[in-house]
Amino acid sequence: MKSIGVGVIGTGYMGKAHSVALKAVGTVFKTGLRPVCEMICATTAAGAAEKAAAYGFARATDDWRILVADPAVEAVVIASPQRTHREIALAAIAVGKPVFCEKPLGETLEDSEVMTAAAEAARIVNMVGFNYIRTPASQLALQIIQAGEIGRLVHIRAEHTEDFLADPETPANWRTREASSGALGDLSPHIINAALRLAGPIESLVADIQTVHATRPGPDGPEPVANDDQGHFLCRFASGAMGSLSFSRVASGRKMGYAYEIYGTKGALRFDQEDQNALWLYENEAAPGREGYRKILTGPAHPDYEAFCLGPGHGTGYNDQIIIEARDFLRAIETGKAVWPTFRDGCEVNRVVAAAALSNRTRGWVTVSQV
Amino acid sequence: MKSIGVGVIGTGYMGKAHSVALKAVGTVFKTGLRPVCEMICATTAAGAAEKAAAYGFARATDDWRILVADPAVEAVVIASPQRTHREIALAAIAVGKPVFCEKPLGETLEDSEVMTAAAEAARIVNMVGFNYIRTPASQLALQIIQAGEIGRLVHIRAEHTEDFLADPETPANWRTREASSGALGDLSPHIINAALRLAGPIESLVADIQTVHATRPGPDGPEPVANDDQGHFLCRFASGAMGSLSFSRVASGRKMGYAYEIYGTKGALRFDQEDQNALWLYENEAAPGREGYRKILTGPAHPDYEAFCLGPGHGTGYNDQIIIEARDFLRAIETGKAVWPTFRDGCEVNRVVAAAALSNRTRGWVTVSQV
Amino acid sequence: MKSIGVGVIGTGYMGKAHSVALKAVGTVFKTGLRPVCEMICATTAAGAAEKAAAYGFARATDDWRILVADPAVEAVVIASPQRTHREIALAAIAVGKPVFCEKPLGETLEDSEVMTAAAEAARIVNMVGFNYIRTPASQLALQIIQAGEIGRLVHIRAEHTEDFLADPETPANWRTREASSGALGDLSPHIINAALRLAGPIESLVADIQTVHATRPGPDGPEPVANDDQGHFLCRFASGAMGSLSFSRVASGRKMGYAYEIYGTKGALRFDQEDQNALWLYENEAAPGREGYRKILTGPAHPDYEAFCLGPGHGTGYNDQIIIEARDFLRAIETGKAVWPTFRDGCEVNRVVAAAALSNRTRGWVTVSQV
Amino acid sequence: MKSIGVGVIGTGYMGKAHSVALKAVGTVFKTGLRPVCEMICATTAAGAAEKAAAYGFARATDDWRILVADPAVEAVVIASPQRTHREIALAAIAVGKPVFCEKPLGETLEDSEVMTAAAEAARIVNMVGFNYIRTPASQLALQIIQAGEIGRLVHIRAEHTEDFLADPETPANWRTREASSGALGDLSPHIINAALRLAGPIESLVADIQTVHATRPGPDGPEPVANDDQGHFLCRFASGAMGSLSFSRVASGRKMGYAYEIYGTKGALRFDQEDQNALWLYENEAAPGREGYRKILTGPAHPDYEAFCLGPGHGTGYNDQIIIEARDFLRAIETGKAVWPTFRDGCEVNRVVAAAALSNRTRGWVTVSQV
Repeated sequence: MKSIGVGVIGTGYMGKAHSVALKAVGTVFKTGLRPVCEMICATTAAGAAEKAAAYGFARATDDWRILVADPAVEAVVIASPQRTHREIALAAIAVGKPVFCEKPLGETLEDSEVMTAAAEAARIVNMVGFNYIRTPASQLALQIIQAGEIGRLVHIRAEHTEDFLADPETPANWRTREASSGALGDLSPHIINAALRLAGPIESLVADIQTVHATRPGPDGPEPVANDDQGHFLCRFASGAMGSLSFSRVASGRKMGYAYEIYGTKGALRFDQEDQNALWLYENEAAPGREGYRKILTGPAHPDYEAFCLGPGHGTGYNDQIIIEARDFLRAIETGKAVWPTFRDGCEVNRVVAAAALSNRTRGWVTVSQV
Repeated sequence: MKSIGVGVIGTGYMGKAHSVALKAVGTVFKTGLRPVCEMICATTAAGAAEKAAAYGFARATDDWRILVADPAVEAVVIASPQRTHREIALAAIAVGKPVFCEKPLGETLEDSEVMTAAAEAARIVNMVGFNYIRTPASQLALQIIQAGEIGRLVHIRAEHTEDFLADPETPANWRTREASSGALGDLSPHIINAALRLAGPIESLVADIQTVHATRPGPDGPEPVANDDQGHFLCRFASGAMGSLSFSRVASGRKMGYAYEIYGTKGALRFDQEDQNALWLYENEAAPGREGYRKILTGPAHPDYEAFCLGPGHGTGYNDQIIIEARDFLRAIETGKAVWPTFRDGCEVNRVVAAAALSNRTRGWVTVSQV
Repeated sequence: MKSIGVGVIGTGYMGKAHSVALKAVGTVFKTGLRPVCEMICATTAAGAAEKAAAYGFARATDDWRILVADPAVEAVVIASPQRTHREIALAAIAVGKPVFCEKPLGETLEDSEVMTAAAEAARIVNMVGFNYIRTPASQLALQIIQAGEIGRLVHIRAEHTEDFLADPETPANWRTREASSGALGDLSPHIINAALRLAGPIESLVADIQTVHATRPGPDGPEPVANDDQGHFLCRFASGAMGSLSFSRVASGRKMGYAYEIYGTKGALRFDQEDQNALWLYENEAAPGREGYRKILTGPAHPDYEAFCLGPGHGTGYNDQIIIEARDFLRAIETGKAVWPTFRDGCEVNRVVAAAALSNRTRGWVTVSQV
Repeated sequence: MKSIGVGVIGTGYMGKAHSVALKAVGTVFKTGLRPVCEMICATTAAGAAEKAAAYGFARATDDWRILVADPAVEAVVIASPQRTHREIALAAIAVGKPVFCEKPLGETLEDSEVMTAAAEAARIVNMVGFNYIRTPASQLALQIIQAGEIGRLVHIRAEHTEDFLADPETPANWRTREASSGALGDLSPHIINAALRLAGPIESLVADIQTVHATRPGPDGPEPVANDDQGHFLCRFASGAMGSLSFSRVASGRKMGYAYEIYGTKGALRFDQEDQNALWLYENEAAPGREGYRKILTGPAHPDYEAFCLGPGHGTGYNDQIIIEARDFLRAIETGKAVWPTFRDGCEVNRVVAAAALSNRTRGWVTVSQV
C-alpha cells in the first residue's frame, strides 16, 4: 500500500468534510493509495494552525501557494471560495499535481473552460466535487436508468432547494453579496449535474430567476442583495426528454431539497436527499393490481454501500458521500484514469448555469451549446 | 325543506359521480333545497333508460334538449363531452335554468367567454366543476394562505399528472383523437384552477408541450395521436410569486398526481391528492430545533369535513368532493348568490390554457390577459 | 328492481352514516334491492322528527318498538348505544326482520351469544357493523393473504388507537362512565375483528389493560373513570402465527390509528387507516437489489373500488365503507345468503374481548375458546 | 492534544466500524484524546495482518491476550463474538485498561454481572456498544422526553426487527447455532436499551418467544435451529407507563426496523431507524386545526449533529453513530467520568433479556428485579 500526501485549501464546511473523508477513506474502502493529511491552508496563520490541530494535519499555512508548491503535497483539494478556484487550480496543474476542486468549478463559464483546458492539456488528474449524486441511492438510480428498467426517459423534475435565506430578516452575508453566490451559482449546479448525469445533455432551456428579498438587514441598515434567491427552468434534453428544474434558498421547510422524479416509458424513479437512503421505483409492468412505488432501502446490493455497512437499511450519511468522492479521486490518481465528474463535466454544468442566466436576461429559450 | 328537480346530461364517469352526489348531498349536508333525480340523458334511449334505473332517476331521454326543456327539470348538470358544453349551457341559460357544467368549461376560450357572458347577462346561477380543490385539505390550504400563516407566497409548484397513457402500446381512443382532450385540455385545467384559487391570477407564462407517443395502435395499424401527452410551464403570478406547473398523462406511477407545494415567506404547504386527507404545513417560526413539516390529518376542525364524519383522520374520498360541489350548487340556487367557481372562473382557467398553447407555438413568454 | 323499507334506530354518528349510505348505495352499486328510508328513531319525538327531515326519512319515532313493528319497515339498522343492541335485535328477529347491528354486537359476550343463537334459530339475515375492514385496501390485504402471496403468516401487529381522551383535562362523559365503553369495549373490537379476518382464529392471549387517567373533571369536581384507557395483548393464532394487538383512546397524535403490519414467510403487508387508500406490500422474491415495500394505491383493480370511481388513486373515504356495508346487507337480504361478518362473527370478537378482560384480571394467559 | 493507543479485537462487521470511527473521530469532534490504531486482533495471524493493513493499524495479532497486554495498547475495544466478551473484558480490567465492549455485554446475565462488578471494583472506564440510540434523532427524542414536552409517558411501542432469516431456505449458520444468538440474544438488547434509556426501568413483563423455522438447510440436510426467530413482550415501566416490545429476524421487509412510538400525556414521538434522520413529534397543544405529527429533520440544532455537517437535513449515517460512541469512550477516558451506557447499563439490558426468557418458559408475568 502506498501513501500520498494531500493538501487541503479551505477550512470551512467543505474543508472539514474533506478532512474527515481523507482520514476515513482508506479504512472504509481499502484504497490502493492511502492519503496522508499533509498540509491545510486557511486565511490566517493562526486559523490554519488551529485547524491543522483540529483536523489532524501535519502542517498548516495561510498561503495556498506554499501548499501547492510543497513537495510533500502530492495532490490538492480546493475547498476555498469559488472565486479562488481558477487561480489555485491552474497553479496546481502547472506543477503537475492532481487536483480536486469543489463545485462549482469556476466562478464563470470562462473560468471553467480555462481550467478544463489547462488540466486536459497537462493531462493532470482532475475532478470536481459534486457529492450528492454519489449516494448509493443516486448511483442506483443511474444503474436503473442505464439498464433501461424505466424505459426511455420522458420527463425529469429536479430541484435543489433549501431555506437558509427564507426569512427576510436574515442579515446580509457573503452569500448575499457576491454575484456568483446566489441560488443559481451556489445551488443550481448540484441539480444540473444530477440532471446531466441521469438524463444526458441538455439542449435548450428557458429560465426565470428572481431575487425575492431585494434587501436584507446590513450593518448600516437595509443592504441590497447582489444575487438571486430562486429560479426555475424548463429544458429539453438531447434525448428528447423534457425537464423542469428548480433551485431556491428561500424554499421554506426545505433543508436538503435535492430531489428528483424521473418518468420513463416503463417506469419511474423518485428520490429526495432528505431521506437519502431510499430510492423509489415504479415499474409499469408489475402484476395487475400490484403496481405501486416501491421504497428501496439502500444496502450492500447497491453501489458503494457495502464498504460502509453490511446491513441494509442501516444508512449512509453526508460525510459518506465525501468519502466515496475521496475514494474516486485516489483511484483516479492511482490508475491515471479519469473518474467522473472531471473538470469537463463541471464545465458543462457551468454552461447550463450560464444558459439559464442568459435566458433569464433575454426572456426566451436558449440553446445551451451556443452559450 | 324544498325540493328541486335536477337533470343530469351524461352517464359516464362524471355523470355517475354527480348522480351519487345528488342522492347523498341532502343527508350529508341538510341542504335547504333537496335535489330530486328527475331525468338523465344518455346518447341512446336504451342507455338512458338503463342508467336511469341504475342511478335512480325518475325519467330518461336520449335528447338533452328534452331534458333542458322539461318543466320538472329545474336545474341542469352537464357531464357530457367537452365539445357539447357550450350548446347545452346556452340552451339551459336561455330557459332560465341554473346550470352546473363539468370542467373544462368550453372546448375553447371563446366558447367559455360566450357561455360566461350568456350566464351573466341572464343572471343565471352558473358553476363549473373543479372538484379536487374542494377536499377539506385543499380548502384548509386556502384558509391558511388567506390567513397569512405562510406569509407572502414566493413559489408555487403544482401538477396534475396521471399515467393512463404512459404505455405506448395503449391503443388510440377518444382521448387521443380529439384535439381538446390532450393533457393540456383535460388535465391542466384542474391544476391551473388550483393555482389560481390558491395563489391568485397568473400574469405571464412560458410553456413547453409535447406529444411523447406520436402514434398509438389503432384498429388499422398505427394511428397518429391528435394531441399532447405532457406539458410544463413557468409562470409569474400577479402577486409576484413564481410558478412551475406540470400536466401529464404519461407520468408512470402517478395515479392521481394532483399535487402542489406552496412556499411563502413564513412557511410552506404540501399536498398530494393521492393522500387527500393530509395537508403538510411548515411554519418557519416553530421553536428552534422543532421545525418540520407537520402532517395535518383532516377532521371536523377543517372545512366541510364534519358533515361527513365526526372523527378526524377517518377520511373523505373522491365522491365526497362531488357532494361538496353539489351542496354549493344547491346553495347558489337557493340563495341566488354565486358560489366559486363560476363560469367566469372557469373561463379564466381556459384563458391560461390558451396562453400555454400559444406560448408553446410561439416558443416564448405570453401575457395571459392578452390572450 | 325492488325496493325495501329500512328503519334506522339511532341518529348519532353511526345513525347518520348509515342514512347517507342508504341514500347512496343504490346509485353506487346498482343493488338489486333499493333501500327506502322509511323510519328513523331517536330518543325524543322532536329529535326524531328533526333527524327524519335532515336525513330524508319518511317518518320518525321515539320508540324503537314502533319502528320494529311497522309493516313498512322491512329491515332494521341498529345504531343505538351498545346496551340496547340485545333487546332491539331480539325484537327484530322475533318479527322476522333482517337486522344489521352496529359493533360491538352485544354489551357482553353473553348478550352476543344470545343474539347470535336467536338470529340463527330464526334464520334471519343478520350482520354486524365492522366497517373499517371493508376498505378496498383491507379487502385487498385479505386477497393477498388468501392467495398466499406473503406465504404463511408469522406475526401480526395491529392496533386501533385514537387520542380523543389523551388530554387528562377532557371532562368525563358517557364514554368514561359506562364500563363497556372503554377502549377495550369500544375500540378493541375493530382491530380484533381485523385480526380474525386477516389471520384467522385466536387461540390464546395475555393482556394488560390500564386506566391512565383515574379521574376526569366532572360537573361536581373530579369524577372517577369507569373504564380503561388503553390495553395491549400478545396472542397466538390457531395457525401458529404470533400477534401483538393494541387499543387506546389516549394515544396522542393518533386520529384513526386502525393499522396493521402482517409478516409472512414470503412477504409482508402494512396498512394504516389514516392513509386508507394505500396498502404497502413487500415481496421477498423481488429482483435482488430491488426489494422494498411497494405503496399500492387502491383503484378499480381492487375490491369494491370501481363502483366509486374509475380512476385509481382518486380515493374512497369513511362513508364509502358504510356504503359497501349497506350493499352487503342488501345483498344478504336479497339472496338469503349470509354475508360476513354475521352475528356469529361479531360474537367471536366479543369472546376475544372477554378473554382479554379475563387475562387482565387473572394476570396470565387465557385460552380464548374456554371463555 | 494527547494521543492514546487503541487495540481492537475482532475484524468483522463491528471491528471494521470501530476502526473507521477511530480514524475519523478526532477530525469530526476535535477530541481531547486522539486515538492511534495501535493493534488489531483476528482469529488468524494472516487475517489479522490483512485487516491491519486494510484498516490502517500499526500491528496485528491472532491472540487477544497479546493485544491486551501490549503496553502501547492503552484502551481496548471488544468487537469479538459474545461468548468471548467476559474473558477479554476481565483481562483488560485486570491490567487497568479502559474497555469498550460491544453489545450484548455478556452472553448471560451472570457474565454481565461479573464484568460489571469487576469494572466497578477496579474503577476502570467501561462502556457498552449500543450505537443506534446515539443518532441525533434518538438523542433528540431523549431531550424532548426529559424536558417534559410530551408529558408523562403512557405507552411505549418499540421493536428491533430485521428479515435476514425470513426465508426458510436461508441455510443454517452461526447465528442459528448458538443459543445466545437468536433474535432475543442478538436483537432485543438494542431495543430494550432504547426503552430503558427513553422510558426508564422496566418493572415487570410477559413474553412470548418463538422459533418460526425449526430447521434450516445444513451441510448434511435439515439442521435444527438452536434459538428463537422472534419474540414479543408486554411490560410495565417503573413510571407506570405500559410497553410493547418486539424483536424479530424474520420480519419480511424490515431491514433496520429499530423503531419506536412513544405516547405521553402531552404529545408523542415516532422514530424509525430506516429513516434515521427524522424524528416525528406530535404536540397536543398545537393550534386547533393545526395538530399533526411534525417531521423534524435532524440538523445542527440537535445533539452531536453539527460536528458532522453544518447543513440540516444533510444526514448522518450508520458509521456516524459509531463515531459518536468513540467520542464518548475517549471522553470518559480523558475525564475519568463514566459515559452512558456503562457495563452497569448493559447489565440491566441483560437482566430484561433474562426476564423475557424466563417469562417465555414460565408462561407468565415476571418481575424483572427478581431475575
